[in-house]
Amino acid sequence: MKTGIVGLGLMGGSWALALRNANPSVETIGFDQLEQHRSQAEQLGLVSRCSTSMNELLDEVDQIVLSIPVDAIETLLPEILDQLSVDQAVIDFGSTKSAIAKAVVDHPNRSRYVAAHPIAGTEYSGPDAAFSTLYKGKVMIVCDGEQSDNAPLEIFLRQCIQLGMEVVHQTSEEHDLHLAYVSHLSHVTSFSLSNTVLNKEKEEQQILALAGSGFASTVRLAKSSPEMWSPIFLKNKVAMLQAVEDYLLQVQRFKSYLKEEDAEAVQRFLEEGREIRKILK
Amino acid sequence: MKTGIVGLGLMGGSWALALRNANPSVETIGFDQLEQHRSQAEQLGLVSRCSTSMNELLDEVDQIVLSIPVDAIETLLPEILDQLSVDQAVIDFGSTKSAIAKAVVDHPNRSRYVAAHPIAGTEYSGPDAAFSTLYKGKVMIVCDGEQSDNAPLEIFLRQCIQLGMEVVHQTSEEHDLHLAYVSHLSHVTSFSLSNTVLNKEKEEQQILALAGSGFASTVRLAKSSPEMWSPIFLKNKVAMLQAVEDYLLQVQRFKSYLKEEDAEAVQRFLEEGREIRKILK
Repeated sequence: MKTGIVGLGLMGGSWALALRNANPSVETIGFDQLEQHRSQAEQLGLVSRCSTSMNELLDEVDQIVLSIPVDAIETLLPEILDQLSVDQAVIDFGSTKSAIAKAVVDHPNRSRYVAAHPIAGTEYSGPDAAFSTLYKGKVMIVCDGEQSDNAPLEIFLRQCIQLGMEVVHQTSEEHDLHLAYVSHLSHVTSFSLSNTVLNKEKEEQQILALAGSGFASTVRLAKSSPEMWSPIFLKNKVAMLQAVEDYLLQVQRFKSYLKEEDAEAVQRFLEEGREIRKILK
Repeated sequence: MKTGIVGLGLMGGSWALALRNANPSVETIGFDQLEQHRSQAEQLGLVSRCSTSMNELLDEVDQIVLSIPVDAIETLLPEILDQLSVDQAVIDFGSTKSAIAKAVVDHPNRSRYVAAHPIAGTEYSGPDAAFSTLYKGKVMIVCDGEQSDNAPLEIFLRQCIQLGMEVVHQTSEEHDLHLAYVSHLSHVTSFSLSNTVLNKEKEEQQILALAGSGFASTVRLAKSSPEMWSPIFLKNKVAMLQAVEDYLLQVQRFKSYLKEEDAEAVQRFLEEGREIRKILK
């Protein structure tokens, strides 16, 4: 089995590592647009070796995993499907799924494609952020699975199980709406919090010296890669706008309680939010 | 040396533990309005013993630490100062300082009081959340230090150093403005995020099954105690409203870029926020 990994950052690099750890007979062949990422990935031993072109990679692998920004997946996936032979498959790890699904829904080779999104990650990026246990114990969402042939789907699902992942099936639309709320929105709140405090720091220079672990935790996602996240927000625009508007209403609700010094309402607002304890331990 | 700890939750319980670990000759005498907290604190060995009334405690200690909600501090502190003898001192650990400062600024015993705020904590509360290393390596802010007598101030500063803390001096006003941005605001963003997602969950019941570590980190502070946080927001109303308004402007800025599908502006917004990496490692 030869697996091609396109995009050798945190997600792709970790997948390659984990795949080979779980199954040493798999050969992992990497590709990344950046020469620097290719040589780093080879030095770090993330992949068996690197290919210097997409076409070369396509010629020799059984399976390709795309772990690149979602706008790049949307462009590249139809081109790959054009060239795919009947015994090859392609999987994408994009964080939004509807736009990509639309781009290939009528493609004659659509069934050789598996739409996936691993719910795993850190705020770091690039080949040196990759580690072999990133996926262990995490959820892999597979979208529109009925549009994929059994063979490539089953091989991929088996890999997920081998890596200790739980598989959840959804439609692309469900996925994008859910993820807008439980993943994409928290990136917006973190980046916005960071911008607010960094702006204030221009007047109050010592302000960040007093930041504790609570602030660090809440702002952590603002360290994430803009190149990865900007396309995610844009490709998931409709659901994102809905999530951001819902969120703004909550912050405004808090603000008006505070302005009116309505202690009971503030307390209730916090108690409502604290219910999250029952779900997230 | 006898130290009285009023409020035997996370902050007070941890302070009592740490103080006695650092200096076994200190006797720590606890008090909490809740009988349950007093017996828990004794069972867990947080304090040497508990007193059953504030007056009894006041009669025998050299130093009292108030680790209770800020509205309770504002009420209790003048009453304690009324009864304080010249060789006793009182310290508060409130997360807002201006309202408390105003409540005692003209008190004849003001100089026996040290206004402090340790930048330490977790999202958990109560005696069983206490642990001895909570304060180690953290910052203790001391406010309006020039209004405290040297003797009680120096004893307290020495305790902070013994516990491995760094001391920062500020005015109450500086403190409240800074903390609004780097601590209180991140609690508002977490509680608001939690409310947004919990509301959405009423329609989309499986939504939280897909939440990953990023969401957990960003929403973590919503597990904090409403009894502790509601008074903090209200007592720091002016600075909080300013921080929340600045924050709303940032989220609205993001929303309008997204609505206009202005990819460059979205990317710039994220890059600005990502500068936080240079400050928080």
